This record gives sequence, C-alpha cells and structure tokens, in this order.
Amino acid sequence: MALSAEQVDAILRQARAAKVASRALAVLGPDRRNEALRAIMDALWADRAAILAANTEDVASARAAGEAASRVDRLILNERRMEQMMESLRQVMELPDPVGHVDAAWTRPGGLRIERVRVPFGVIAIIYESRPNVTVDAAALALKTGNAVVLRGGKEALRSNAALVAAMQAGLARAGMPEKAVQLVTATDRDSVDVVIRAKGLVDLAIPRGGAGLIARVVERALVPVIETGVGNCHVYVDRAADLDMAEAIVINAKVQRPSVCNAAETLLVHQAVAEAFLPRVARALAERGVEIRACPRTLAVLGAAGGRMERVVPAAEADWDTEYLDLILAVRVVDSLDEAIAHIERHGTRHSEAIVTDDPAAAEAFLARVDAAAVYHNASTRFTDGFEFGFGAEMGISTQKLHARGPMGLPELTTYKYVVRGTGQVRG
Amino acid sequence: MALSAEQVDAILRQARAAKVASRALAVLGPDRRNEALRAIMDALWADRAAILAANTEDVASARAAGEAASRVDRLILNERRMEQMMESLRQVMELPDPVGHVDAAWTRPGGLRIERVRVPFGVIAIIYESRPNVTVDAAALALKTGNAVVLRGGKEALRSNAALVAAMQAGLARAGMPEKAVQLVTATDRDSVDVVIRAKGLVDLAIPRGGAGLIARVVERALVPVIETGVGNCHVYVDRAADLDMAEAIVINAKVQRPSVCNAAETLLVHQAVAEAFLPRVARALAERGVEIRACPRTLAVLGAAGGRMERVVPAAEADWDTEYLDLILAVRVVDSLDEAIAHIERHGTRHSEAIVTDDPAAAEAFLARVDAAAVYHNASTRFTDGFEFGFGAEMGISTQKLHARGPMGLPELTTYKYVVRGTGQVRG
Repeated sequence: MALSAEQVDAILRQARAAKVASRALAVLGPDRRNEALRAIMDALWADRAAILAANTEDVASARAAGEAASRVDRLILNERRMEQMMESLRQVMELPDPVGHVDAAWTRPGGLRIERVRVPFGVIAIIYESRPNVTVDAAALALKTGNAVVLRGGKEALRSNAALVAAMQAGLARAGMPEKAVQLVTATDRDSVDVVIRAKGLVDLAIPRGGAGLIARVVERALVPVIETGVGNCHVYVDRAADLDMAEAIVINAKVQRPSVCNAAETLLVHQAVAEAFLPRVARALAERGVEIRACPRTLAVLGAAGGRMERVVPAAEADWDTEYLDLILAVRVVDSLDEAIAHIERHGTRHSEAIVTDDPAAAEAFLARVDAAAVYHNASTRFTDGFEFGFGAEMGISTQKLHARGPMGLPELTTYKYVVRGTGQVRG
Repeated sequence: MALSAEQVDAILRQARAAKVASRALAVLGPDRRNEALRAIMDALWADRAAILAANTEDVASARAAGEAASRVDRLILNERRMEQMMESLRQVMELPDPVGHVDAAWTRPGGLRIERVRVPFGVIAIIYESRPNVTVDAAALALKTGNAVVLRGGKEALRSNAALVAAMQAGLARAGMPEKAVQLVTATDRDSVDVVIRAKGLVDLAIPRGGAGLIARVVERALVPVIETGVGNCHVYVDRAADLDMAEAIVINAKVQRPSVCNAAETLLVHQAVAEAFLPRVARALAERGVEIRACPRTLAVLGAAGGRMERVVPAAEADWDTEYLDLILAVRVVDSLDEAIAHIERHGTRHSEAIVTDDPAAAEAFLARVDAAAVYHNASTRFTDGFEFGFGAEMGISTQKLHARGPMGLPELTTYKYVVRGTGQVRG
C-alpha cells in the first residue's frame, strides 16, 4: 500500500466514528432525522461563500490540468447549483421514512410474535468521482434513512467536498446531532478506497458510483458487501409488429435525449421484416441529430440500397455490440426474429434497461418475461430507468446486480431489516 | 492455480450450461417447477441403492482417513435419511411459489405502468462442506424458485454427491426438464471454488455454507455477489428485571439443546443486580449438563463466594468473548447495566441472534431497538433463528450480512425482482 500506517489508521478511525454515530442515528425518530437534514441544509446555505470559494480552486486546478470541458462542468458549483441542492434536500425531507416500517408480522403456534422491521444498514460507503453534488445527495439520503456515510470522492473535487462536509458536520453539531455521521476520506491515493471497502465490521455496504473501471476495482477488492451500479449497454428492439412512428420516437429519445447516462440506448436491433421500412427513416432522423451509426452488414446493405447519404454510417466491429458509448453513437443490427433479439441482449447486455417496440402483445410479453434486466420496457424509452422517473423522489444510483436492489435505488433500498421476536419464555423443543 | 486450463474450462462450461438451463426454468410455470421437484424425488428414490453404495464408499474413506465421528456421522446417508430427504422434497413442493409475485405496481402521471415482479436470480452457486443432504436440499430450493444451481461440495462427499446429482439430472431429463439446471463441480482442488465464485456473468449469487474459514475465503475471493451465512457468536443477556426461572430455562436451551449450531448461545451476560441470585443456580444447571463455564472475574467471585463446586469453571481469556465454541462451553460475564450489555454485544457479536430476558418492557424495547443483529429476542431462546421455526418451511442458510437477506433465508430470499414497464410510446422529456 502506498498509504502510510497513519493514513490507514485515520481512515479506520473515521469509519469507527461513523459506526458510533450510526448507532445514535438509528434510534432517532423520523422527525429528528429530518431535523438533521434541515441542519445540513441551513449550514450549507450559510457557508455557501466558503464552499464556492473552495470549488473555484478545484475548478481552476482542473482547467490548469487540461481536464475536458465536460469533466470541468461536472465539477462546477455556483449559486444556482447550490439552490438546486437546497431544493433536492427539501424534497428528501418530504419523502416517507422507511425506517421502522414493519414489512411483515406473524405469530407462531408456540406463541412467538415475529416482526420483520426495516432498519438502517449502519455505515454506507460511497465511492465516487468528480461531482461534488453527490457529496450532499449521498449524505442526505443516508441521514434520512438513519445511516452514517463514509464519502470517498474524486481528488479533483477534494476542496469542494471538504468544504461541503465541514459545513454539514458543523450544522449537525449545532443541532445536537451526531456530526460524525458524515465522514469524508481526504487521502486521494487509490489505496484509500481499499481501506474503506475492506473495513469489515465498520462499513456495512459500499456503493461505487462512477465509470466501469472504478466499479470493477471496487468489486474486485471489496470485503464488505457491494452494490454495483450504473454500467448500461441498453438495447431498443424494434419488432416486426412495431408502430414505426413510435419506434422512431423511442429510438431517438433513448439515444439522443441525454447520451452520457447509463440508461441511454447503445444498440438498436431491428426485425428483418421491417428493416427496409424502418432503417432508412431512423438513420435519417439519427443523422439529423449528429448520431453516428455502427452498422451490421445487413443494415449497411439496406441503407446503401435506400440510396441515402451515409457519411455517418460505418461498419460495426464485434466490439461495438459490447460498448457503452455514452456518446452520439448507435450500433445497429438486423435480427431474424424476436428470439435472436433476446439472444443478442442476453449475450451483450449489462442487465440494465431493455426495450421492445411492438403492437404484438405476445411478442411484448415474451420479451418482458425472458429478458433478464433490472428494467424491461414495452413501447417506452429506456431513459425512464431513474429514481425520479419511477416516482421514488430520490436515487442513490442504479443497481445492475441482482442482490438486494435492482434498478433505481430509492430510500427503502438504503435500509435492511431485522427480525424482532417477542416471547414469554419460549425455548426450542 | 493448481487447476489445469481444461479443468477451469470444464467448470465454466458447467456454469454456462446452468445459465442456459436457468433461462428455460425461469419461464416455466409453478406447476412445471413442481413437476421438476417430483422428477428429482422419484429419481432419487429409484436410484437409492446406487446412491447408498456410493455413500458407503465415502464413509469408508472418511473412517480410514481417521475423520472425527461427528464428521463421519454428517456424511452418512441411509434408508431413513433418504426417506427424510423425500419428505423434505414433498414439503418444498407444497410451499407457495414466490416467482412471478408482483411486489408493487403503480402508474406514473405520464401513463407508464410499472410493476416490480419477483424473478429467479438465474444461477446460484452453493459452496459447502461434507453433508450430502445439502446437495439435494439446495437443488430443490433452487429449482422451486426457478434457479439453476452449481454445487461445490466437500471432497469427502464427492461420490455421494455425484450419485445424487446423476439421479437428479436423469430425473429431470426423463421429465423433459432442463437437466443441466443442476451441476456438480467435481474438481476438489480448492481453486475450483475460485473459478465458481469469480464467474461473473454466469453465476448470479454465491452462498457459502460451512465454517468460518470457508466463508471468509469466499468473501475474500468472490467477484459475484455473496451472501455470508452462519457464524453465530450469540448472547443471552439476563437483565436485572428478569424472571430467573425463565432466564435459566432460556440459557440452558440456548446453550445445550444443540450446541453445534450457529444459533446456540456462546456468551451469557448477567446484570450485576441479579448476579448473586442467578449465577450459582445457572452454573449448577449448566454443570449438570456438562457445560464448562469461562467466567469473568466477577462471575468467579460470585461463584466462589457461593461455595459451589467449581470443577467446570475456568477464568475467561479475552479471546473467549469472540469465540464461537459450537460446543458445551459458555462464556459468562457480569455487566453493570443494560448499556454495558449492549456495548459488549456490539463489540463481540456477529449480528446473528441476541436475546434479552427481562420483565421490564422499557429494557426489552431498548435492547430490541439498539442491538444490531439479524434476529433480536425478548424472553425467548436464540435457537429459534431457523427457517422452519420461523415458519418459512425451508431454509437455504442463515444470512449474517445485511445486504439482500438477513437471518433465515426461505424461498423469497432466493429470488430477486425486475421492473416491468408497459407504455404506449412514452419518451422522456
């Protein structure tokens, strides 16, 4: 490890402090937890000058280091983004509190009364990249659900994150709340991530949020349970029985509306029966929006025969079917059947969001039943896989694994349960 | 790796075959899945002579290798145990089927209809030690929930497991079911476990069942999601307001009724206000049942002053508070308060099962709320943490982690969910 023993100890001390704070949080009532949110909201707003000053330094460093404009943009905080942050905190306060909810309760023949009760995890670690708003969002969702949080953000945002966390801790302290419930790991060496995700007994859950490399590294090295998030190689399949106007609108929306996010479509599959009718028109619509097409041979043949302009159409390589472009690029493939579409998704998909466009109810139901993904869509855009679009009012990320949470994670997904068993002296016979 | 490339390939081929079979299983209806259980039940019974012959060889090898009698006993199959296996399969068939259950359904303002539907994981890997009945139990619970299963049992039971799996596969094939849904990894090198638990994309969930060493190794090396099971350092806390007759009965039951299992108690905590009244009588009752006491200094003092015989009482070392004896040994400690009891459990417990004995409702509720464990008990034995005792009718293990499942895992815990979204052309604005 490149970290010194002192640095490792410091991180473990933070995790331990978070654990202690989590015990206090867990037994606060929902009103008190909302007071904690109110306290961090007030403190962030009161300290916004210091926060924006720290952020200005981060942004200047990123620009000086030649970071891409899109990365610099994600790093920027300003008065308007601070206002959005406040609005987001207000929304979280208004959400129903899952903690203490009794999922189920029953009495056994011997008289034992068993309740399955929602409880916080304890300490949730969030490993993320450069967006400082994640610092506040993650802390708010954790506090709302009675969890402490250990934050390990990207080093480009370190000064911003430190200012945000200092404000939140001060706010919690002023309100008489366990301020150590929000911890920021300031060591920026990559090994500091390992200390966090291997702190069994202190960290109850780790959620990596970021690119595929970050997530793979966390999964590889973690000893604490992990929820994988975010990698989305999503498909839209246009069936032989599709309404082609609807199909075009869905493909354009899924690809173009916000190409940089995980629920954007990366591959279009078209049934051969509608390839000639659909491909030229969708190619035109995509070209108008600056989308490059990576086409299978049959797609190339159809588009060539249709005589359209093909500047933005190139042959697909095998790797294209597995690529999450996060950009204005779409792989396009003609398939012979619904089965072939499902097999393609099975082979190349990342189990995130998959859509079929069809007016054939049997085809729709087969697709919805057989495709293995967090969210499967009939006649709608993949872009709806999102905690807000689903109506959860919040989102800690989109899980692409099957354990615990799948798809958008709202507040209930940030809790676990325990069995509370009340007896009158029962022993086992 | 000590495995040859061919061996690794063979295991991955098995996992892939299981994945393909899981797709077929997932779309069978509940009646058809029960037919699969009926098919393996009939085949196991028909092939029992071959199974028992294979088991006789395993048992002879284990005896020749000088295995402990308790380990040999766990390995043994006989006609009676085969009958129990059949009865257990019948019970699983009768359980309600969680697959396809709609947990929640709602319509968004834009008209999207969202359903959260229970679906199988796909392929579940079970890593276990020497009990061949686990082979059949795990396969049955997996098939019932639409999952394929990759079994990696202990090498002592290899011949038994091979015979059991051959029978089950033959039964599935005769019934026209995907027989590759049940796979046994026959390489007994420890590295073969690694191949299974690192097969991302093929194995959806790994459940280690066995000793602490096995579980730690799986957690350390797995890339697929894991549910940790079974390690239980469980406590009974006898409060100042306890009914001492009830307390004695619960302590004896929790320690003695079956000491080798994870929900047996390993440490007794006694409030100082009742130490003089309770410790001598419980020590006597424990001694009568052959239980050795590892006592804290205050416990030693109380027992010494009470003038009882102390052959089976020895001073506790610090390590005793962290030891899962799985034997007729009990650590005993006097605490000053409920808070000290909770702090002790927080520090030394494994979040499995924890009990308070008290007639004080406030103490009981504080303990139930503040102790972080899969199951918390008021006035009942820790021995009830069990899928059958909870009324689940089945159990795949007892989870000691917080992600996905906590405590006894029944059929619903062997499923995940997906969001099925039906639209009429919705796109995101």
